[in-house]
Amino acid sequence: MTAIIANPAAAVPGDARASFRGGYCAPTSGWSNGYAQANLVTVPRDWAYDVLLFCQRNPKPCPVLDVTDPGAASTPLAGGCDLRTDLPRYRVWHDGVLTAEPADVRDYWQEDLVCFLIGCSFTFEGALSDAGVPLRHVQAQRNVPMYLTSLPCRPAGRVRGQLVVSMRPIPPGLIATAVAVTAAMPAVHGAPVHIGDPEGLGIDDLQAPDFGDPPQPAPDDLPVFWACGVTPQAAVVTSKPPLAITHAPGHMLITDIPDR
Amino acid sequence: MTAIIANPAAAVPGDARASFRGGYCAPTSGWSNGYAQANLVTVPRDWAYDVLLFCQRNPKPCPVLDVTDPGAASTPLAGGCDLRTDLPRYRVWHDGVLTAEPADVRDYWQEDLVCFLIGCSFTFEGALSDAGVPLRHVQAQRNVPMYLTSLPCRPAGRVRGQLVVSMRPIPPGLIATAVAVTAAMPAVHGAPVHIGDPEGLGIDDLQAPDFGDPPQPAPDDLPVFWACGVTPQAAVVTSKPPLAITHAPGHMLITDIPDR
Repeated sequence: MTAIIANPAAAVPGDARASFRGGYCAPTSGWSNGYAQANLVTVPRDWAYDVLLFCQRNPKPCPVLDVTDPGAASTPLAGGCDLRTDLPRYRVWHDGVLTAEPADVRDYWQEDLVCFLIGCSFTFEGALSDAGVPLRHVQAQRNVPMYLTSLPCRPAGRVRGQLVVSMRPIPPGLIATAVAVTAAMPAVHGAPVHIGDPEGLGIDDLQAPDFGDPPQPAPDDLPVFWACGVTPQAAVVTSKPPLAITHAPGHMLITDIPDR
Repeated sequence: MTAIIANPAAAVPGDARASFRGGYCAPTSGWSNGYAQANLVTVPRDWAYDVLLFCQRNPKPCPVLDVTDPGAASTPLAGGCDLRTDLPRYRVWHDGVLTAEPADVRDYWQEDLVCFLIGCSFTFEGALSDAGVPLRHVQAQRNVPMYLTSLPCRPAGRVRGQLVVSMRPIPPGLIATAVAVTAAMPAVHGAPVHIGDPEGLGIDDLQAPDFGDPPQPAPDDLPVFWACGVTPQAAVVTSKPPLAITHAPGHMLITDIPDR
């Protein structure tokens, strides 16, 4: 019997994970305020060096929080966690093709799989909100918009790809605050990579994000772009390993680690 | 013909490397003030994932500055550099046994070798000195003392070992300054891991360091310990890869990267 979580924002991380393990499914934005969330990228051991080196060479979009031993589904970031069941939804990729979007990946598990847990910008949204910076996508109950830019990451072996950014529309008087708050959190991407002018990143249309939902800016807002933890996932999928398992967009691992 | 470096402290990094490439050999402490120096650990590609993961799991002693592609001997950290010739002295290890200590490792090179460049505490010594903190080993023209502690690092695959620390004796009134200065430089180990009481680290005799020279403290100095970039080198050697190439103690790569 799955426990009902009455107030997701106040959910203890272990209770949130147990709820997802029991079959409940929801995007994790706004869940368990005060705790870091993590992106998941899982590949066979044969691919793990290329992925880890890609993250080392591109630290801003790929802040590595933990890497599991081959076949292990637990992490010190989340006590008692089973990474195969405790995220609300997954994506399964074979040779770069999306083949399933299950709530449990035990049927796909292999003993050579290595899980990468990567810092997520959801983690700094609580700090932005506390500093008075409005979060338009949270107000609209939407997923944050994410864009594949024209900026190449430094490749590593077989893994190569473009930088992915998340975008939050922010009023001009609060952009400096947003920079200062996030610059102090380097484990979750740190300061913005770009402010204003989407074309400078090769983004033609802000209303057509590559991941997430279209933004709903207020009239004077400027677009502020952060390096996004979807970057390694997009690069891995593009690189076509025989098997990859990722979180579904917006459906992250909720960790036990305080977000600051 | 090797250029003579009249004033090592003021040497441009490229000139220092050219001098070592030409056959000049000296410890690099005090060279090219204002530029970062790096530890070198080179292993076959088959061992590279374990080494990179060891560094990811133990970031304080192992701040990775760059990892080369297999067989490549260049790095963006040092323009025009050949990592096989541009350090003043190397150590060559076969199955964990020291077999040579040459000034040039081209004879040992293999196309599957991967070089790890790791941040070095020599880098923060300029900042300590500028802040008025005396460096006893520099005053005595000795190498800094380093100790293998009893604290285990988090292992990664075949690579496991204890934390290695460097120690600088510091007057009580300047310890807080030393902490503040180095805490601001996380790419080179950051703040001290331990202050005072060597037994707390499993060190019985400060006058018998495992690497470097015995310290010469002033009477009131307290020992201050920093995580040391020799940690991954010691762990790799202990783990007995078929071939490993490291810098010789105190004989680092001088990079083109400003130290702060």
